[in-house]
Amino acid sequence: MQTLLDLISTARVFDLAQPYYVGMPHHPAHPPFLFGLTKQHGDYIAPNGASSAADALALGSHNGTHIDALCHFSCGGMLHGGIPAREVQSPGGGLRTYSIETVAPILRRAVLLDIAGLEGDAPLAPGYEITPAHLDAAVRAQKVEIRPGDIVLLRTGWAQYWNDAARFLSQVCGPGPGIEGARWLSSRGVFAAGSDTVAFERVPDNNMPVHVHLLVESGIHIIECLNLEELAASRVYAFLFVAAPLKLTGATGSPVRPLAVVSGE
Amino acid sequence: MQTLLDLISTARVFDLAQPYYVGMPHHPAHPPFLFGLTKQHGDYIAPNGASSAADALALGSHNGTHIDALCHFSCGGMLHGGIPAREVQSPGGGLRTYSIETVAPILRRAVLLDIAGLEGDAPLAPGYEITPAHLDAAVRAQKVEIRPGDIVLLRTGWAQYWNDAARFLSQVCGPGPGIEGARWLSSRGVFAAGSDTVAFERVPDNNMPVHVHLLVESGIHIIECLNLEELAASRVYAFLFVAAPLKLTGATGSPVRPLAVVSGE
Amino acid sequence: MQTLLDLISTARVFDLAQPYYVGMPHHPAHPPFLFGLTKQHGDYIAPNGASSAADALALGSHNGTHIDALCHFSCGGMLHGGIPAREVQSPGGGLRTYSIETVAPILRRAVLLDIAGLEGDAPLAPGYEITPAHLDAAVRAQKVEIRPGDIVLLRTGWAQYWNDAARFLSQVCGPGPGIEGARWLSSRGVFAAGSDTVAFERVPDNNMPVHVHLLVESGIHIIECLNLEELAASRVYAFLFVAAPLKLTGATGSPVRPLAVVSGE
Amino acid sequence: MQTLLDLISTARVFDLAQPYYVGMPHHPAHPPFLFGLTKQHGDYIAPNGASSAADALALGSHNGTHIDALCHFSCGGMLHGGIPAREVQSPGGGLRTYSIETVAPILRRAVLLDIAGLEGDAPLAPGYEITPAHLDAAVRAQKVEIRPGDIVLLRTGWAQYWNDAARFLSQVCGPGPGIEGARWLSSRGVFAAGSDTVAFERVPDNNMPVHVHLLVESGIHIIECLNLEELAASRVYAFLFVAAPLKLTGATGSPVRPLAVVSGE
Repeated sequence: MQTLLDLISTARVFDLAQPYYVGMPHHPAHPPFLFGLTKQHGDYIAPNGASSAADALALGSHNGTHIDALCHFSCGGMLHGGIPAREVQSPGGGLRTYSIETVAPILRRAVLLDIAGLEGDAPLAPGYEITPAHLDAAVRAQKVEIRPGDIVLLRTGWAQYWNDAARFLSQVCGPGPGIEGARWLSSRGVFAAGSDTVAFERVPDNNMPVHVHLLVESGIHIIECLNLEELAASRVYAFLFVAAPLKLTGATGSPVRPLAVVSGE
Repeated sequence: MQTLLDLISTARVFDLAQPYYVGMPHHPAHPPFLFGLTKQHGDYIAPNGASSAADALALGSHNGTHIDALCHFSCGGMLHGGIPAREVQSPGGGLRTYSIETVAPILRRAVLLDIAGLEGDAPLAPGYEITPAHLDAAVRAQKVEIRPGDIVLLRTGWAQYWNDAARFLSQVCGPGPGIEGARWLSSRGVFAAGSDTVAFERVPDNNMPVHVHLLVESGIHIIECLNLEELAASRVYAFLFVAAPLKLTGATGSPVRPLAVVSGE
Repeated sequence: MQTLLDLISTARVFDLAQPYYVGMPHHPAHPPFLFGLTKQHGDYIAPNGASSAADALALGSHNGTHIDALCHFSCGGMLHGGIPAREVQSPGGGLRTYSIETVAPILRRAVLLDIAGLEGDAPLAPGYEITPAHLDAAVRAQKVEIRPGDIVLLRTGWAQYWNDAARFLSQVCGPGPGIEGARWLSSRGVFAAGSDTVAFERVPDNNMPVHVHLLVESGIHIIECLNLEELAASRVYAFLFVAAPLKLTGATGSPVRPLAVVSGE
Repeated sequence: MQTLLDLISTARVFDLAQPYYVGMPHHPAHPPFLFGLTKQHGDYIAPNGASSAADALALGSHNGTHIDALCHFSCGGMLHGGIPAREVQSPGGGLRTYSIETVAPILRRAVLLDIAGLEGDAPLAPGYEITPAHLDAAVRAQKVEIRPGDIVLLRTGWAQYWNDAARFLSQVCGPGPGIEGARWLSSRGVFAAGSDTVAFERVPDNNMPVHVHLLVESGIHIIECLNLEELAASRVYAFLFVAAPLKLTGATGSPVRPLAVVSGE
């Protein structure tokens, strides 16, 4: 253990999460983030002068930087593994299979593929499709290897739009991989794929083929709304990825604050 | 980095969080956890047969396993560092100082002091006060050292009551340290202190002296509602503690799913 | 006053609202209804044996039986009255103009036009358009007059689907008036128009022309998700309509439990 | 019906509700009111230029002007009518007996007793007890009669503090009737009793004897956080009271916007 603590104490830690605040972007199919104090300092004062403030929030489990549970999507009525979706869902209890509380804490190798970086570093255009050719080019340019069980993060540069909700959402018309890009990812046996946009895949496409291919057909998690800017600026392309989804029983996803950890030298 | 990934790949990871579900315990001053699906599989079906389920939740930032921001408490109108609380709070925006989004991801050495284990392993009685003598005895019995910057977790055994909300809350009358126990902790320069109860400190005590001493006077975070059972059963007393509070702008706390990581052998 | 109380004491009161519960239908653009107890009887017991239960809820202001504020829609960037929408909105405060708290309590004459009743009484088909010819025919068949300032309620029969959320929503493809029907209503100078569906107008139509015509161009409120079954079965076609929108500051709508009151004899 | 509409068209309508907004007062045992836009005008624009804004909210059913269901309190484990509370409650479903959706729309005679008016019109002091003597004096001074089935509203003047949350709550130390005042009300066979404070009864008193006496022992609803200022200023002491609790299935209370209606002349 000594060694692990020593390594961590000198490691560099990148915070890959966007902040939560009222007015932050959210996909139109999910509720907004709400926040307010339940009490303020001074509302109630104890005999010793102690007082406290506390707060409440409401949100969708797909708001902000978050990870999708495999049960988030179905196709032809079936979840991943051929489980009939309607038999395992209820309005108040959520999903009883492949829900987010079944996902173990994630501490895995991850790779950043900086697609925006390949293209001059400006955020990719709305509707831009990330193809296998782009993915191969990034792997080559960055001299990075993808291994089974890894997490692959694609940078589009859209994290820069986070504080401009209308632009970040762009009528749900973001850049991302299409089905060919998704197959490139699944063929490498990754554990999860993520990006810095609201939908990961190129949208709009009502069929959401990338979600179907990754979540339902391949059992691969999707991570959305990451902030990959600092990581890319530091040219850190392989790292330890740490994220612990909240154990929201029956939920189809969870907010996370993922970390990229790299050994210092 | 290679070495860090190797170490992690063989490490044991303990999940220290309790699950979230409707009906789970919550302190009466905080709102309950609410959950429901926003849509179910089959409600909307795309041409390719794709469908999705999603969910929404409402909660207090002090529900479930969570960490307190320093701004959670004040005394005599002042936050930690002598900041006048009323000048930095607003109902819709929360606190502008020492709020939870300012807390960096936590990757630190931590120590478990198994107080229930000292006393025969049954959960401590309601209102039981953990004194400096108990803390010293646990340090000796476990042969563990506390260093500045560490996190110290106290096990009362109350995690076993999580699924019995009325007992877990016990009319807000849980075991924990009193002010002397708190001073023992602060004198060691810890970064945070936590336990498996709803209030950390021995309650009821309207003055909440331990919260005042740790958060306001000492700048030490408090972590509540941990599940320390598996860690104690495995006699793991020192470890890497990993927790990434959600960046809830202005909030006085955040849900977390903390991990204890120990090198395997 | 005597007379008013006497009349009320012998009046028949019809409840036009649908119930709220977890899993009830909601338009996909709005969050679901969430509910849970904040405390249960027995959680906290006072010395005299008193205990209490209380609850919390989360919802969209357009969930369940509700009324739209005029600020709900804009066209070409303008709210009703030519007010630039972007200048009067904020994420946390809502709209500062034509928001729901500015709507006075509603006690007005209302007329039910039973379109489903005209057509054999079965619920209208998905996508069925209610035309001026249907509206004229209902007025004739029911021998009812529409006066300026009235509220006109259209029955499609879809209230019968309330407890089957997927059918009630039907991929957001409900029956209702198109733009011609909307013009028929506005030309009569009504105060509000409503129906028993989730969108009032015939959907899907991304342009939402009826909402634009009524709310933005005409200043006419829209009431959705009414239950008009009992009223129609009783052949009550003109009545006092009573509804008091909650004063949700800045909100674009409000839940209401509208009543139809008719003198008994 | 003609006559009823005629009377209503010339009636005076008083709005007895306080507004909802983030930061409004709420009893510390209940969650705060949260609000935010789910989308803003301009986020999504249809081909015809249409756009919409919508919002979401979270609250406790006892926030703002609201009415208590009989199931809100129990004593000795029993609800009104001797129903064992624990057998009819569940965390996600609420109460199955005497819950708010079982309360019919309220259109009843009501009486205002202006206790603050008796005492010089300033808001009553914190902890001030309204006694049977005060109630008798108000009845005499106002020359008003209370009949079985009526609603009785007590004015303390605290509605004036609504926009000063800390003062309105006053550490939950408001004026109101004690047990003798409650017995005075129940002996008159009223349907409901209400006031302009957060707790109706004189607080603090952990036993909440007035809630127990009215809700549990007498089956009388309680209405809290009314705004009775305009009514009192107009010296309107008897009127038609109209309120329609939302049909929140299983809930222990509901927000309402109550109206006082008096015939014009």
